[in-house]
Amino acid sequence: MSDTYGRAFSLMREKAPEAWRDYTRHAFVESMKDGSLPKEAFLHYLRQDYVFLIHFSRAWALAIVKSETHEEMLGAVGTVNALVAEEMQLHVGVCEDAGISQDQLFSTNERAENLAYTRFVLEAGYSGDLLDLLAALAPCVMGYGEIGLRLAAEKTSEEYGDWIATYSSDGYQDSCKAVGKLLEEALIRRLGVSYETSPRWRRLCDTFRQATELEVGFWQMGLTP
Amino acid sequence: MSDTYGRAFSLMREKAPEAWRDYTRHAFVESMKDGSLPKEAFLHYLRQDYVFLIHFSRAWALAIVKSETHEEMLGAVGTVNALVAEEMQLHVGVCEDAGISQDQLFSTNERAENLAYTRFVLEAGYSGDLLDLLAALAPCVMGYGEIGLRLAAEKTSEEYGDWIATYSSDGYQDSCKAVGKLLEEALIRRLGVSYETSPRWRRLCDTFRQATELEVGFWQMGLTP
Amino acid sequence: MSDTYGRAFSLMREKAPEAWRDYTRHAFVESMKDGSLPKEAFLHYLRQDYVFLIHFSRAWALAIVKSETHEEMLGAVGTVNALVAEEMQLHVGVCEDAGISQDQLFSTNERAENLAYTRFVLEAGYSGDLLDLLAALAPCVMGYGEIGLRLAAEKTSEEYGDWIATYSSDGYQDSCKAVGKLLEEALIRRLGVSYETSPRWRRLCDTFRQATELEVGFWQMGLTP
Amino acid sequence: MSDTYGRAFSLMREKAPEAWRDYTRHAFVESMKDGSLPKEAFLHYLRQDYVFLIHFSRAWALAIVKSETHEEMLGAVGTVNALVAEEMQLHVGVCEDAGISQDQLFSTNERAENLAYTRFVLEAGYSGDLLDLLAALAPCVMGYGEIGLRLAAEKTSEEYGDWIATYSSDGYQDSCKAVGKLLEEALIRRLGVSYETSPRWRRLCDTFRQATELEVGFWQMGLTP
Repeated sequence: MSDTYGRAFSLMREKAPEAWRDYTRHAFVESMKDGSLPKEAFLHYLRQDYVFLIHFSRAWALAIVKSETHEEMLGAVGTVNALVAEEMQLHVGVCEDAGISQDQLFSTNERAENLAYTRFVLEAGYSGDLLDLLAALAPCVMGYGEIGLRLAAEKTSEEYGDWIATYSSDGYQDSCKAVGKLLEEALIRRLGVSYETSPRWRRLCDTFRQATELEVGFWQMGLTP
Repeated sequence: MSDTYGRAFSLMREKAPEAWRDYTRHAFVESMKDGSLPKEAFLHYLRQDYVFLIHFSRAWALAIVKSETHEEMLGAVGTVNALVAEEMQLHVGVCEDAGISQDQLFSTNERAENLAYTRFVLEAGYSGDLLDLLAALAPCVMGYGEIGLRLAAEKTSEEYGDWIATYSSDGYQDSCKAVGKLLEEALIRRLGVSYETSPRWRRLCDTFRQATELEVGFWQMGLTP
Repeated sequence: MSDTYGRAFSLMREKAPEAWRDYTRHAFVESMKDGSLPKEAFLHYLRQDYVFLIHFSRAWALAIVKSETHEEMLGAVGTVNALVAEEMQLHVGVCEDAGISQDQLFSTNERAENLAYTRFVLEAGYSGDLLDLLAALAPCVMGYGEIGLRLAAEKTSEEYGDWIATYSSDGYQDSCKAVGKLLEEALIRRLGVSYETSPRWRRLCDTFRQATELEVGFWQMGLTP
Repeated sequence: MSDTYGRAFSLMREKAPEAWRDYTRHAFVESMKDGSLPKEAFLHYLRQDYVFLIHFSRAWALAIVKSETHEEMLGAVGTVNALVAEEMQLHVGVCEDAGISQDQLFSTNERAENLAYTRFVLEAGYSGDLLDLLAALAPCVMGYGEIGLRLAAEKTSEEYGDWIATYSSDGYQDSCKAVGKLLEEALIRRLGVSYETSPRWRRLCDTFRQATELEVGFWQMGLTP
């Protein structure tokens, strides 16, 4: 795989090959590709994803708090806006089109697999610095980017074409690159250009891998409404 | 059930009857009572519980940080000492006796069901105030107290007698009462004597219930090494 | 004074009459009104205010993290955008016009009186919930609003007309009202409509007063370049 | 000066020579040495120091939360116990002997110079990782150790002999060495043995210096009851 989303991301992904494959090639993903995913599972996933986005946006806001430069702040602010002001609003619309009212959406019970993921990310951010937080945030952002691109190229059905179009869009891909740049530069600023030789690197890669494994659990939950 | 551990705890428990029963009467618990729990499952549980205690102790230390009075601090400090300086050390010994070396214990891979629980508690504490944190901490402390007392009275086998003795001991029961008092007084200090009429009460009870459900997941994990 | 910025703010201000007067009628303020403030003091203040805004924006980002509803998140996101993406950029421009290069601005040494204030706000937010944070944030936002309005009406010199125009502008006044609404609704959500009868109210008012006193120290620092 | 309290501390101190001298040779300190410090100033200092210790203990509890190993946790727990369970209780006694009742002590108004320091430390800890927190905590712990040792050797009056005896005692000196070891090992664990070549080192030294400057402000406050 290429360095589309930056060097740091590529290095972290390399350290978690099984988890990354299980996540980006999960049965849930493959069944969106060929359209075989039951509609019920997709809507269940969408509702959980709305709750996910609330906490994921909070985690990105924490990245602003943990920034050390105006530039880092601007990078994180951009993502928060995209998530809170746009993606979450969009989700409400997608769900309404799918017959899920706002009331139903807002009263969604958060599943344990969902909660596990966002609380892990938030706690990593609260307890650590910006690097710990970004290592936990990256798998979600970039994984969806990779999945979107691949499914756009390989899909054999239009059933989930809208979802695929969203994450393969230039807009979303640009977000992935911006996050990759933020991660890369935050690492260099704190640990130097050879950041992967720092003792901290191993722990950061562990955090990335754990977050990736929690993504696997999230897809699995999607299959069991 | 009685108010052994204080009024606030009793009221919170009342609001989560199914989750509380599923937790305190879980198959894992019942099979410790009659000794039918496979040794392998118990040792697997012990190892996960060691990792759990690390993060649980960190959460109790956060309760010191979030205290508003010297008395609240002393209450939380007592629990941190009991956990970090005593219970965690004890665990190392119990595991060694059971043939798990310190190296094996320290390299235990944290299971998702384990991680979900501690990160939920820590995040509730970081994002909220002392009340949010205590509502998330209470189910573990007091649930083990209730289970310990009941199993001491009902057990039909000595297989897990040591575990049962630990949590039914006067020392542990006193800890439960102290935590119940800390919770009760922290509520009164912040929300008044009729704290259960405050709008915040519902959210605190939700946190208590969610933590209890995560305990159910923890036992369930114990059964699947 | 009226309830321009909402009931909660008015009640908090009422509890800190001396501090509020010392802050909003400080010699620094009065000398902007009549134009007697030395230019050197104003530029020194501007540079410190830039550093202040970095940490103040981080504190507002923390308000997103501490939000419990999508609506609260949107309220806080609006303020973060206004601060990070607009006001901080604007500051860079104002300073350049005043002969302070970006390099000089970025290398400003944070004075103790400056640091005391922002760290107090951030710590209140980290250790408490959204209410503790908003109580610490309110004096800065609304105080500048009040000062702006009064100086626009009473000013006898155009020397600091731009500064006065900024904080008396409809845009800034609307921000104050939005923050007042966010505070009011967050209080009602957590403590009920009679929030001022909750035991927590006193501590929140203490936080508001302490933040106001730190504003007094900030103006005082402005007078001693 | 020697490496009594470890290599990391010595290196950090070296980077802040003026601030360190202003702190450890402050007029307040020198006047304890020769007994010329007015009793009123000392009692005023003691009362502020009690409030300081509350927040300083909370900051040390945060070091437990931010620990990554059981050993780091034990190091921080030891300090929290010494502070919360012993030093704060002791302070109550010292103040009573000096004619300050518990009620007076507990109602002490926190001065801005006091608040600035503890909130700076807590915020550094919340926003960063254990290293950022320890860099902010070290100047207080070790500075008092250095002052205690020097005053024990140079004092020309017994007026403040008790205070001097406390901080020159073997017990306190051992605490300083333990904190020095914790700092040293936490640095090596995260940044490697050549931690002073990491880009993070500069920021950590800045934090150390800023905390030292806030200590200077604290002594200055002591002279102005």
